[in-house]
Amino acid sequence: MSTSLKLGFIGLGIMGTPMAGHLRAAGHALFVSTRSKLPQDLLDAGAVACGSAREVAQKADIIFTMVPDTPDVEAVLFGETGVASGLSAGKTVVDMSSISPIDTKCFAARINEAGCDYLDAPVSGGEVGAKAASLTIMVGGPEAAFERVKPLFALMGKNITHVGGNGDGQTTKVANQIIVALNIAAVSEALVFASKAGADPAKVRQALMGGFASSRILEVHGERMIKRTFAPGFRIGLHQKDLNLALAGARALGVALPQTAGAAQLMQACAANGMKDLDHSALVKALEMMAHHPVMPDAA
Amino acid sequence: MSTSLKLGFIGLGIMGTPMAGHLRAAGHALFVSTRSKLPQDLLDAGAVACGSAREVAQKADIIFTMVPDTPDVEAVLFGETGVASGLSAGKTVVDMSSISPIDTKCFAARINEAGCDYLDAPVSGGEVGAKAASLTIMVGGPEAAFERVKPLFALMGKNITHVGGNGDGQTTKVANQIIVALNIAAVSEALVFASKAGADPAKVRQALMGGFASSRILEVHGERMIKRTFAPGFRIGLHQKDLNLALAGARALGVALPQTAGAAQLMQACAANGMKDLDHSALVKALEMMAHHPVMPDAA
Repeated sequence: MSTSLKLGFIGLGIMGTPMAGHLRAAGHALFVSTRSKLPQDLLDAGAVACGSAREVAQKADIIFTMVPDTPDVEAVLFGETGVASGLSAGKTVVDMSSISPIDTKCFAARINEAGCDYLDAPVSGGEVGAKAASLTIMVGGPEAAFERVKPLFALMGKNITHVGGNGDGQTTKVANQIIVALNIAAVSEALVFASKAGADPAKVRQALMGGFASSRILEVHGERMIKRTFAPGFRIGLHQKDLNLALAGARALGVALPQTAGAAQLMQACAANGMKDLDHSALVKALEMMAHHPVMPDAA
Repeated sequence: MSTSLKLGFIGLGIMGTPMAGHLRAAGHALFVSTRSKLPQDLLDAGAVACGSAREVAQKADIIFTMVPDTPDVEAVLFGETGVASGLSAGKTVVDMSSISPIDTKCFAARINEAGCDYLDAPVSGGEVGAKAASLTIMVGGPEAAFERVKPLFALMGKNITHVGGNGDGQTTKVANQIIVALNIAAVSEALVFASKAGADPAKVRQALMGGFASSRILEVHGERMIKRTFAPGFRIGLHQKDLNLALAGARALGVALPQTAGAAQLMQACAANGMKDLDHSALVKALEMMAHHPVMPDAA
């Protein structure tokens, strides 16, 4: 890999800004555009502001996108002044947003038509992981393109897996969000049951940590439920978006996900009760409402 | 603790036989009774056969019970020739079966009336853990009784936690079985979705192992789903019994467990399709039937 590449980054939100910052800090030329105000820190570090996604695609060889949802990726790639309109053959588009696996396959095919490679590379780890360059990155797309971009992924994350062809990165992210949501529901139901039965939920969690019930969610989110620390973390509103991707994808694929559908309804109950911006561990509160019994009292 | 104690063990099935064997191997006097034929190995090792649970309670100072379900414990403790009819003050009854936390509190109170201590000490780890003396043991009851019996628990298990008062051990076991069932459902839905979307489920599992989706179930049961190894392990029929304890307990306590109810229905679908004696990781097959798509083909 040459010492300095011409990189583009589109979408400078809570996640994109620190991720782009890591690329620039490694000495690469960085061309950026975003819908909102450009972060001054990034410009001070030498990033070059562009007027459109098209201009970014004209000036950079590898273009990263990091935007909220499927329609945003479609607009950034294929809108009037979008990436596709500025591409020339041999460039690489890397979408790091978390979006539909099915639409991703379609987006990749359209980018391939311009003679360019496409990688879907959604992340997990949140704002903390983006700042610390410790994101988990799940990648779909051609092996050669993955190998070319891998040193750049390594500037932003730690646990980087090439899962398979285009769409497989997004599929893996959806699978991740299904498991995380259902494991949160699992710990929630277990702790509400145990607390209502009169046991100390902290001791129950401790007793379960070594056995088959052990999980990262029991460890981290179980503790949040007991200590009543529901500041995000990862917001319920965002997890609702991801479960919608799972359920819409499942409907399109002809797959029934009854437990995921149930967990989505519990998150909807949280949102309906004003908890959309709490951490997703607050799913426990939907079950606490139904039982009329909190796992532990909230702090005063 | 004195070098040799007078112990009783009632219920010498798949779990009870190796557990009683460990107690006898440590040099304690062991008085046993069981509904079925007494294991010859245990008699050869010096265990003393008794004609009834009453006789075991008359001869031993600490009496362990390990039987299938709540009515079995009730019969063994309070039946015509049961433990209670043979107790004298100062003895200790230790129920290691997995049964109702609510009935357990009642059983403990009745044993206490005879001037004896009661511990509920259900285990997890299955036949493998029983044989290897590596069971997880979750204990409810008085602190002093727990400390007295702890060295004996250490002959049968490794991860031994005193959770709280009587019933809290059984409550913890129910919480464990809720989480295990829901984590199996989580991994099942994620892998069926990923496979139907065209991704390699083995690579998806690998990519998820380091992040927030990681769990003992993703590691162990996820691999079983991919390698199609559904020999138990822990049978669906037994997990159905445990989820019945959770749902009946929840109804009695006034707690709603919608996800646990859903998982119980998936296990029921497995049982209806002749899978009651498969490992509980075969829950994935209920979702595979609904999607008309296996995560991976079964071996020929």
